[in-house]
Amino acid sequence: MSLSFEVQHRDPTGARHGLLATPHGLIETPAFMPVGTAATVKGLTQEALEALGAKIILANTYHLYLRPGHVLIRKLGGLHSFMSWRGAILTDSGGYQVYSLADLRKMTDDGVRFRSHLDGSEHLLTPEKAAEIQLALGSDIAMVLDECIETPAPRSIAEAALRRTSAWAQRARKYFLENAQQNGDRPQWQFGIVQGATFADLRRESARQLLALDFPGYAVGGLAVGEPHEVTCEMAGEVTALLPTDRPRYLMGVGRPEQLADYVALGVDMMDCVLPTRAARHACLYTSEGRVLIKNARYFEDQRPIDPNCCCSVCRRYTRAYLRHLFAAGEITAAILATHHNVHFYLDIMRQIREAIRFGHLQKFAAGVRAQYRSGPH
Amino acid sequence: MSLSFEVQHRDPTGARHGLLATPHGLIETPAFMPVGTAATVKGLTQEALEALGAKIILANTYHLYLRPGHVLIRKLGGLHSFMSWRGAILTDSGGYQVYSLADLRKMTDDGVRFRSHLDGSEHLLTPEKAAEIQLALGSDIAMVLDECIETPAPRSIAEAALRRTSAWAQRARKYFLENAQQNGDRPQWQFGIVQGATFADLRRESARQLLALDFPGYAVGGLAVGEPHEVTCEMAGEVTALLPTDRPRYLMGVGRPEQLADYVALGVDMMDCVLPTRAARHACLYTSEGRVLIKNARYFEDQRPIDPNCCCSVCRRYTRAYLRHLFAAGEITAAILATHHNVHFYLDIMRQIREAIRFGHLQKFAAGVRAQYRSGPH
Repeated sequence: MSLSFEVQHRDPTGARHGLLATPHGLIETPAFMPVGTAATVKGLTQEALEALGAKIILANTYHLYLRPGHVLIRKLGGLHSFMSWRGAILTDSGGYQVYSLADLRKMTDDGVRFRSHLDGSEHLLTPEKAAEIQLALGSDIAMVLDECIETPAPRSIAEAALRRTSAWAQRARKYFLENAQQNGDRPQWQFGIVQGATFADLRRESARQLLALDFPGYAVGGLAVGEPHEVTCEMAGEVTALLPTDRPRYLMGVGRPEQLADYVALGVDMMDCVLPTRAARHACLYTSEGRVLIKNARYFEDQRPIDPNCCCSVCRRYTRAYLRHLFAAGEITAAILATHHNVHFYLDIMRQIREAIRFGHLQKFAAGVRAQYRSGPH
Repeated sequence: MSLSFEVQHRDPTGARHGLLATPHGLIETPAFMPVGTAATVKGLTQEALEALGAKIILANTYHLYLRPGHVLIRKLGGLHSFMSWRGAILTDSGGYQVYSLADLRKMTDDGVRFRSHLDGSEHLLTPEKAAEIQLALGSDIAMVLDECIETPAPRSIAEAALRRTSAWAQRARKYFLENAQQNGDRPQWQFGIVQGATFADLRRESARQLLALDFPGYAVGGLAVGEPHEVTCEMAGEVTALLPTDRPRYLMGVGRPEQLADYVALGVDMMDCVLPTRAARHACLYTSEGRVLIKNARYFEDQRPIDPNCCCSVCRRYTRAYLRHLFAAGEITAAILATHHNVHFYLDIMRQIREAIRFGHLQKFAAGVRAQYRSGPH
């Protein structure tokens, strides 16, 4: 089975409701991808992910390359087989992780030389290498290596990173197309990544350069790294306006619950973020009434579920008082239950977003979510 | 619904297969109770425990008294309601935990004065207080406060602890009987605890003194604390020989997988141990072929399940290579999957033990388990 994407409904905002077909199942878009850095979504078994209705998750090339290694994963039948995940997987390129290493890396036109955060060993990540690793992992969607920079950035730095990102994308595309057949019956898509920091003209220029490489899908990278939400939206909008309407668009690393609909309104089809899982482990629970910081003493005797409006299995069974206790006691079960709820909350927002698009009501829905969050118990 | 116990089958070894009826379900004995110290079995949700077929778990009076407090738990409807556990619960008395505090406690005839390991606050645990806390928790089975001592112990120390344990049992029984009706429709049993260290005559004496108090069930405490397995068995046997045949016997804090059938052969009906859950978190997995220390490099490429003979959901889905990776990466999911398997392994041994008793084959079964463990990859 091959990959395909089809837009089925359009909302007046520009939002699209589509269907992404992969060798590992059909994914309704817009879709949120829970982050499974090291071949596991922290705190959730694959059974739990299935029960939550997750159809696609993200895994990290950088982490899996270092441990347990892409050679092992290829030998054991690829990432799906290794982690026993029947749904789809998107792998990032490692660009963002390597960028985060700061002192441990050196960027050249060839690639990024870096030291492992695990054992200090030295490695060279090139556009070709990032593609090779992801071909070995056998993810459904692979990402090209890009150069991430800090924001706000001087224009000259942003221009240089843009040039390098485009040059790398060309090399990555070439390598990928020449070697993709090695996976035989495991077809894979490779997405390009648009950079350009917070300069609208650079964003447009980056998009144009990548369009020439004819990727089956495009991502917008280097956003949601500290700039105001309005700027994220402006930059994403500049890019999606130029991208082909028949291919999926992926906004990397977003977002907060009340922002998801805004991105979708810009024509974004895919998103990923560590927020629901990481916040859960830090006792921050998302609800229809805003964030619940469950360690707070006010929840000591609170017999309500995390979110009275939530139908997830955690809210149907456990109280805030019990969750607060589990976090206070540092119990593993706290992370399990909190993660389950938060991921359900994100996936449920996406279900509501898709429904709103079908009825052409996304703008109203987005305003409602924002209003709820403003009035909620932050 | 009240509590009752009935022996249904007897094995030539002296083992019994019975039925313990509680307000929270029927429990087939011999039963193993997973340990849920702080109102959670570390790494397992209550849904997971149900799926594993756990019918009764143990919770710790000491921990719950300190955090979140028995007053809160009573206010929220008792421990079952607080943690949303529909099965049965046995609560220990806190005697063993307080004993483990060593420098932080002072033992008198009145009770134990101790400092909380959490915040250093001072508390007095008396036989009456331990009973009061457990009445507030509303467990199905409460334990009397006993004095635990180190083993091997001088005879004089063991005699003094025995005397105190008996005196405390008398006070605990009195308090419990006078106050048990406060729980209304939540009937509760209180078990006595036989002490006596490794002195057979003291064990018998302790049992005789407790029998006079007419408990509905009896525990053997202070064993499996470092003495050889043969001594544990000898002492447990001395006690069970004296206990009424129509009441449940509970051997506290045991044991290793290959030892469970030995204890059952001595007429033990209930056991608890942190081993399956704690070992799981330390990457030690129990299998039908012995222990698998899953972090070992030999499992790097091992595509077999943890235990090829196991039918648990973890063995049906995940490989040793994946488990090894999760532990190497320090992932929460490692603890979840490993705990699930180990608890399944223990509960499955108990199912096999009960079946062996029904067919009068327990001795053969116990020998088989020991042989497997000797030949396994320790």
